[in-house]
Amino acid sequence: MKKHILVISGDGIGAEVTTWGKAVLEQIGKTYGHEFTFDEALMGHEAIEATGSPLPDETLEKAKASDAILFGAVGHAKYDNDPSAKVRPEQGLLGIRKGLGLYANLRPIMLFDELLNASSLKPEILKGTNILFFRELTGDVYFGEKKRSADTASDLMIYHRYEVERIAIKAYEAARLRGKRLCSVDKANVLETSRLWREVVQEVAKRYPDVETEHMFVDNAAMQLVKNPKKFDVVLTANLFGDILTDEASQIAGSMGMLASASIGDGTGFFEPIHGSAHDIAGQDKANPLASILSVALMLEISFGLSEEAKSIKDAIDKTLKEGYRTGDIADSNTDKSKILGTTAMGKKVLE
Amino acid sequence: MKKHILVISGDGIGAEVTTWGKAVLEQIGKTYGHEFTFDEALMGHEAIEATGSPLPDETLEKAKASDAILFGAVGHAKYDNDPSAKVRPEQGLLGIRKGLGLYANLRPIMLFDELLNASSLKPEILKGTNILFFRELTGDVYFGEKKRSADTASDLMIYHRYEVERIAIKAYEAARLRGKRLCSVDKANVLETSRLWREVVQEVAKRYPDVETEHMFVDNAAMQLVKNPKKFDVVLTANLFGDILTDEASQIAGSMGMLASASIGDGTGFFEPIHGSAHDIAGQDKANPLASILSVALMLEISFGLSEEAKSIKDAIDKTLKEGYRTGDIADSNTDKSKILGTTAMGKKVLE
Ligand SMILES: CC(C)[C@H](C(=O)O)[C@@H](O)C(=O)O
Ligand SMILES: CC(C)[C@H](C(=O)O)[C@@H](O)C(=O)O
Repeated sequence: MKKHILVISGDGIGAEVTTWGKAVLEQIGKTYGHEFTFDEALMGHEAIEATGSPLPDETLEKAKASDAILFGAVGHAKYDNDPSAKVRPEQGLLGIRKGLGLYANLRPIMLFDELLNASSLKPEILKGTNILFFRELTGDVYFGEKKRSADTASDLMIYHRYEVERIAIKAYEAARLRGKRLCSVDKANVLETSRLWREVVQEVAKRYPDVETEHMFVDNAAMQLVKNPKKFDVVLTANLFGDILTDEASQIAGSMGMLASASIGDGTGFFEPIHGSAHDIAGQDKANPLASILSVALMLEISFGLSEEAKSIKDAIDKTLKEGYRTGDIADSNTDKSKILGTTAMGKKVLE
Repeated sequence: MKKHILVISGDGIGAEVTTWGKAVLEQIGKTYGHEFTFDEALMGHEAIEATGSPLPDETLEKAKASDAILFGAVGHAKYDNDPSAKVRPEQGLLGIRKGLGLYANLRPIMLFDELLNASSLKPEILKGTNILFFRELTGDVYFGEKKRSADTASDLMIYHRYEVERIAIKAYEAARLRGKRLCSVDKANVLETSRLWREVVQEVAKRYPDVETEHMFVDNAAMQLVKNPKKFDVVLTANLFGDILTDEASQIAGSMGMLASASIGDGTGFFEPIHGSAHDIAGQDKANPLASILSVALMLEISFGLSEEAKSIKDAIDKTLKEGYRTGDIADSNTDKSKILGTTAMGKKVLE
């Protein structure tokens, strides 16, 4: 198989971790006889510094022309504390989501048995948790009209029927191949957008009678994820609710540094660790490269249909963890101190 | 002291639990020589059935004329699964918040040592957690203009400067009397409303140099609450984010049935358990009356300035828990089966 992959490292620890995702791809290419070619492009704070734009045209063009994108992270504290900044790194990420039509963000929340104790949740609550989130990614209050005057500010939360329908279909298709349960999360007791959301999901549900559907209010979902995460199989939700719930769930899994996500639409797929740019540890060889490596596994599986190759990556990670190796973020009091590795050493261990 | 209290039981388990809140108020009146008078009014599904409106005019008038309101819960599954319903129980709650100008919802997340094990979180993560949420309650996407066409639906997320300022002041005043740390939660990297929010909070912060301010994105806050709930003191946030985060936090505390909230503004205060109408257990003498009783403690403290009386209620609850008594929702495998009580028996125990 011949594939062209665009690497967008972005800000903070982006470059350090993406290096290892790319190295694993190269190794998979060699081992299984695929020809992976690579290019690079700028996004986020780095892109603003170099070109003035968080998403240079060249980046979007290269993205469209590639078969898949491996992304690192964007963000910089400099903009966060300046509410009046007009240009922000995050606009790059939002721009590429919109530009490539990446309307579905898939985030598998999976547990590594070896890391059960890394969570704040009790192991007996956690054990057996396996959730696949479908977060809508190109609509909602993220992209609705924004207004600002001296005394007010507003963002329009808006959904179109087709936007809800296309992601609902993707989520139901996935549920069918998994636990056959789908929980759609909204706030239909208050929001008009949620009432449309619920209406459309109810319609799509009829086409999947083999999948059990539940509708849950977002406040309740935020609770249930803590109380009994095992009860969820596929969770389908809107952009803003998905932003909050997937991050909550990743922390529940206790392994933020171990989780990857795939953003897909009708064109090129986009794969990224769920952790952010973490400037506080950038350049210190401390970041956990496993989420970037797992992003590559998602890419192989989802964009290229290479399940065996994807599995070999997950097995390599499992083995590394079983041998007791950890990066700082997933180490606990039982970890053998000599087995706490930096980014580079952990990347190499998995490659072996 | 002479005070007139309006009791609005609402739907589901509302009536059962509110009975005990009221009984405790009566007892406090007798013991401390206060004259509490009571009236009742309808809201929610019950009100719709009786009058066609979720918030009859009479209820709002009585509410305005009272010194404080003790509320139960509203909601009914009948409306939840019908996205086209025009009249909904929740409109009663939203209407009274707006009608009374209850712009600040205070939700203390406190732990009862006896119940440390009731949470899904590990006791060592939880121990020492003590958070006071300030959720804005009369603005945001809850009250902005809603539109609906065949193919789209929208809700306007909107904030005015004065709305952010007045709740920020309340939160800073409270922080000053507590741990002197305030975390303001927003999504300023994406939302214009959040950028206004952050701007105003930054301005108000200058007037409270003795309080340490942190700004956090809502997705990160949803994570940090699971990862390290102890790190929060006062949390200040908008209506929608507050809805999600306070419910998440209450589950973290593991004692949903034990938490109360106060909604305040410039007039009459409104006190309620944070649990909902729980129709599945309504009328079965199973509901936990402690949150309603704790709502009364909040009322005494916040609306009437009766701290000693409030403390005597908390002490009575502490004592009941220390003696091993539990309702079903807060019982665990260590609970002596003979000490698992129904609503009535638990209410009586606390009265004793
Ligand atoms: C960086 C930010 C714009 C982004 C979002 O809110 O979508 C991030 O939090 C995410 O979840 O990918
Ligand atoms: C019932 C509903 C409208 C309400 C809200 O979303 O505010 C409830 O969830 C709450 O938190 O009080």
